[in-house]
Amino acid sequence: MVQQLDNLAEETAGKLEWLAGFGKDPEGGVSRLLYTKEWVEGQHALKEWMENEGLKARFDDIGNLFGTLTGKNTNETVLTGSHVDTVTNGGRFDGAYGIVAGIIALKYLKKHFGQPVRNIEIVSMAEEEGSRFPYSFWGSKNIVGLAKREEMESIKDFEGVPFVEAMKNAGFGFADESKGPRKDLKAFVEVHVEQGSVLETEKIAIGVVNNIVGQRRYTVEITGEANHAGTTPMGYRKDAVFAASQMIHEIISMARKTGDPLVTTVGKFEAYPNIVNVVPGKVIFTIDVRHTDKEAIISFTEQMTARMQDISKEHEVEMDIDMWMDEDPVPMDQKVVELIEKQCKQNGLNYKLMHSGAGHDSQIFAPVVPTAMLFVPSLKGISHNPAEFTEPADLAEGVKALIGALYELGYKE
Amino acid sequence: MVQQLDNLAEETAGKLEWLAGFGKDPEGGVSRLLYTKEWVEGQHALKEWMENEGLKARFDDIGNLFGTLTGKNTNETVLTGSHVDTVTNGGRFDGAYGIVAGIIALKYLKKHFGQPVRNIEIVSMAEEEGSRFPYSFWGSKNIVGLAKREEMESIKDFEGVPFVEAMKNAGFGFADESKGPRKDLKAFVEVHVEQGSVLETEKIAIGVVNNIVGQRRYTVEITGEANHAGTTPMGYRKDAVFAASQMIHEIISMARKTGDPLVTTVGKFEAYPNIVNVVPGKVIFTIDVRHTDKEAIISFTEQMTARMQDISKEHEVEMDIDMWMDEDPVPMDQKVVELIEKQCKQNGLNYKLMHSGAGHDSQIFAPVVPTAMLFVPSLKGISHNPAEFTEPADLAEGVKALIGALYELGYKE
Repeated sequence: MVQQLDNLAEETAGKLEWLAGFGKDPEGGVSRLLYTKEWVEGQHALKEWMENEGLKARFDDIGNLFGTLTGKNTNETVLTGSHVDTVTNGGRFDGAYGIVAGIIALKYLKKHFGQPVRNIEIVSMAEEEGSRFPYSFWGSKNIVGLAKREEMESIKDFEGVPFVEAMKNAGFGFADESKGPRKDLKAFVEVHVEQGSVLETEKIAIGVVNNIVGQRRYTVEITGEANHAGTTPMGYRKDAVFAASQMIHEIISMARKTGDPLVTTVGKFEAYPNIVNVVPGKVIFTIDVRHTDKEAIISFTEQMTARMQDISKEHEVEMDIDMWMDEDPVPMDQKVVELIEKQCKQNGLNYKLMHSGAGHDSQIFAPVVPTAMLFVPSLKGISHNPAEFTEPADLAEGVKALIGALYELGYKE
Repeated sequence: MVQQLDNLAEETAGKLEWLAGFGKDPEGGVSRLLYTKEWVEGQHALKEWMENEGLKARFDDIGNLFGTLTGKNTNETVLTGSHVDTVTNGGRFDGAYGIVAGIIALKYLKKHFGQPVRNIEIVSMAEEEGSRFPYSFWGSKNIVGLAKREEMESIKDFEGVPFVEAMKNAGFGFADESKGPRKDLKAFVEVHVEQGSVLETEKIAIGVVNNIVGQRRYTVEITGEANHAGTTPMGYRKDAVFAASQMIHEIISMARKTGDPLVTTVGKFEAYPNIVNVVPGKVIFTIDVRHTDKEAIISFTEQMTARMQDISKEHEVEMDIDMWMDEDPVPMDQKVVELIEKQCKQNGLNYKLMHSGAGHDSQIFAPVVPTAMLFVPSLKGISHNPAEFTEPADLAEGVKALIGALYELGYKE
């Protein structure tokens, strides 16, 4: 179905370069945080581009930008897109690629297939990263009716600017909650860079995502006794770093033994007082556990905490373990996944079914709207970094897969 | 030899309380850093006290304060004392106790035994802690002729004040290096709080120190690869925290198995980027190894680094290990130790021979002058902290042991 598209790689890479101009850092990265000047300019430039491609463009109340290819039946809409915001000093692809790929896909569909059966819409969502305000998924949560005004009224950014003020200055305001969420959405397909290195390592162009992992996050505090490193014999010590080192070595070994798709990370580690010649009296570290199966997360973390309890007893240290995040896995819609697979096969695309180890807007849509995701490779898995990169040829493969998916969802009765 | 001394506990504790008034922190600790106003006032107050006790008091060029009980033979001197400086927000006993105990001991000896055979001198040394300037043992190094002017000329404190300026403002200057070190010193005995919990745990009043440990300190840098915690399967990771946790667990286990007097501490641990959802790409940690026997330090650290090399290979991470301190153990003078033991026995004092796990001015004297140390218990081993405490009764036992030692060294032909 996807015809020869000689300049697709060049066009997609070029448009990403152009969009990266809004919020370009002197260091080479992109900082386009929610409701900043760079963000406002970026969204308005995208609106102009959508209009130039013949799409009907509009903002919603809070600043999500939509571009519609109007269908015969306007009561049904197939949505694609991603988030326009970046982390501070982030890359050119995260989020942005889903928007650029969507506009180019709609342009192609319009040109080659004319009016669709139902609306096909591209969305440039206001926010996903949680990088300016302590809140994530502001864009997608507004679309599906999960955002609540009262959660936003007291939050401020790192410079003390209230969320409400920033939103107002950007030209937007709260949505009318009494209207409720949109009823016309029949499907959502998000294209995104993998932010991992599975596709690159396995030399596969497209990942068709069938699941977004659930995750639990913990903060563990180990309290022993701070002592002089010279005058305290080994047998007298309650060394928090010694206890923590055994815990971490064992739980990560357990995770490696358990194997894919389980991942476990101790990303943060702080020792106190953190002085070369003092036996550490306290350690605080974090654990991040992810899996596509809820039961597997429960079983692993139960085993993990039991083992940590035992180790803390052996070391005669106190342990406080606080689970502060517990998110369920989010399965993608199997029908949409199958439609996408079918199109990939028909168009000869090199794809694999895989899960997403990171969170995405799709997890907000999936419980409400039949949803699926497409991944393209990330160089060395690097993301949230100016070095984030995807080969133009891979970007083009992702757009082709999206064109196929939207054709299947938007042009068939 | 030591007669009934009913008020010794009270007198010693009272004088320590008085001395702590010079540099008293609002939080309850003591900050009496080299050449500060508090330090100058403290040294001059000590000089006045020495004079009141009938000692001949004088400063040397750099600000070490001496009080002499003149002997028949003035070419020979037995020295006691410790350092008057404290760490920032330190305790009332570290250093100060050795000065207060020395003055009280000299007062007692003068009163009960009159003029000694040779000079007995108490010294309140200018500096040991290295807390204001990046230099330690400034006091003792000047006495034995190890301090070098050129090492001091460029150093500054944390507020940028040059060492030379601070010294001049306190009323002191460099010593005349051409004069060389003192030739009259026949012995040095330092009394100090243990700063460990061995004496307290074993319910012993006096530690007679026969050795000061040697130590090696290392900084270890482990370089793996920072990756996304969700999208990087366990098998793809080069997790620096995982590798470091195995190293630390193994080397501290090895040290525990090796046993006393070996101690090994990982006091400082920094993970990078230290974010909950990023696989850590780098860890920097320190290792502090101490033992009374040089060969034992060499053998342990060789085994330790070999095992760490193996672990870094197994984890496919880079390891850089830098030894930035390598100090030999310092044995005390066996004759002086025996004299002290004899006096302890004669006076019925509850003592044990032990090593010092911390560094002291005595290690600067020992290679040049026959030297020994006496310890008294530290509550819970706490030191360098406002909570530093020794029971008045234990303070008195230490003074008694010092009186015995100085009698043995100063009054016998």
